[in-house]
Amino acid sequence: MDYIKIPMDIEKRSFEIIGEEMGDHNFSDRELQIIKRVIHTTADFQLKDLTYIREGAIEAALELLKKGVTIYTDTNMAASGISKATLKKLNCKVECYVGREDIAEIAKERGITRSMAAVEKAVEEGVEFFVFGNAPTALFKLKELTLAGKATPKFIVGAPVGFVGAAESKEEIEKMDIPMITIRGRKGGSNIAAAIVNALMYMIIR
Amino acid sequence: MDYIKIPMDIEKRSFEIIGEEMGDHNFSDRELQIIKRVIHTTADFQLKDLTYIREGAIEAALELLKKGVTIYTDTNMAASGISKATLKKLNCKVECYVGREDIAEIAKERGITRSMAAVEKAVEEGVEFFVFGNAPTALFKLKELTLAGKATPKFIVGAPVGFVGAAESKEEIEKMDIPMITIRGRKGGSNIAAAIVNALMYMIIR
Repeated sequence: MDYIKIPMDIEKRSFEIIGEEMGDHNFSDRELQIIKRVIHTTADFQLKDLTYIREGAIEAALELLKKGVTIYTDTNMAASGISKATLKKLNCKVECYVGREDIAEIAKERGITRSMAAVEKAVEEGVEFFVFGNAPTALFKLKELTLAGKATPKFIVGAPVGFVGAAESKEEIEKMDIPMITIRGRKGGSNIAAAIVNALMYMIIR
Repeated sequence: MDYIKIPMDIEKRSFEIIGEEMGDHNFSDRELQIIKRVIHTTADFQLKDLTYIREGAIEAALELLKKGVTIYTDTNMAASGISKATLKKLNCKVECYVGREDIAEIAKERGITRSMAAVEKAVEEGVEFFVFGNAPTALFKLKELTLAGKATPKFIVGAPVGFVGAAESKEEIEKMDIPMITIRGRKGGSNIAAAIVNALMYMIIR
């Protein structure tokens, strides 16, 4: 069987095809890198219209990444999808609090979801870069903590997916004046959230 | 803010909404559990028509899961998305060969992709349950090894996503007489692949 075997060639050709098929747009070069990577990871062109990139959000994210930050993710899947080699080069790291032993205990004691307890812990530890690919409750929680003056997120990827609370959680977070990239409506997911972070990191490294 | 905070309630309500909105179908109860979980993880109803469940595939997968198997995944993301608690109850485990040190060395030596080297190693180690959410080349490789009489896969989840080789890799694997569930066309992904495995495991455990 004859097929392209070199990963970088596959990615390059994929991005060309996406560019040819996505039609007219007003995205900047950097915005386009995010949109294309999101479509690349899903083969879903609808995401061209669902991806919201707030003005100044890319610059805010790059500034954080360049100084070497801890990136909060709401799931292990999102953490897995973020390029470890690139994180390392940037002196950044990713942490998915939700799987930690101490988080499970806090959640149980207080009768809240583990994903909510995880956000609280991340905020306590001074995290500023938040990535949500799954849990609407975690995104709601971050808004609550921010309104209460307890959290000061500097960049958010808001991409929870689903049918109960996901769309609403993104509408709620968009009401806040914080640099962010969101996937509007029901769609989203850990794979998309990771793709957005990778696209941002590749603007610096690749 | 008022929102549903109990994960199991969110999932139950989500599945109800999916059932209400997905329209007419001819799926069996078990097939429906897979379809709904795939839609649940993507919010993409198109997957109702793209998911191909071969006759007898669910039964074949359940038989393997019940005896406690090693599940090959082509990415860490797919491995991350598969429920660890449920795997444990079933005495199954998941292994993503592609990240292993020895695989990187084999790939480099032979000038093949790490994902192809990973399939070869899994086959060598007797794996029968294969899950592909990303790499078309790995799926092509499994077909080659099977045709050569070197591999005997007993169940395949074929869900590579993308624009170069993904659709073709699934067409190729479907030509083989092996129990399988595939996502046809360009769509797919590690999240979908993991959702299919979880749906299968929950038929036994939950």
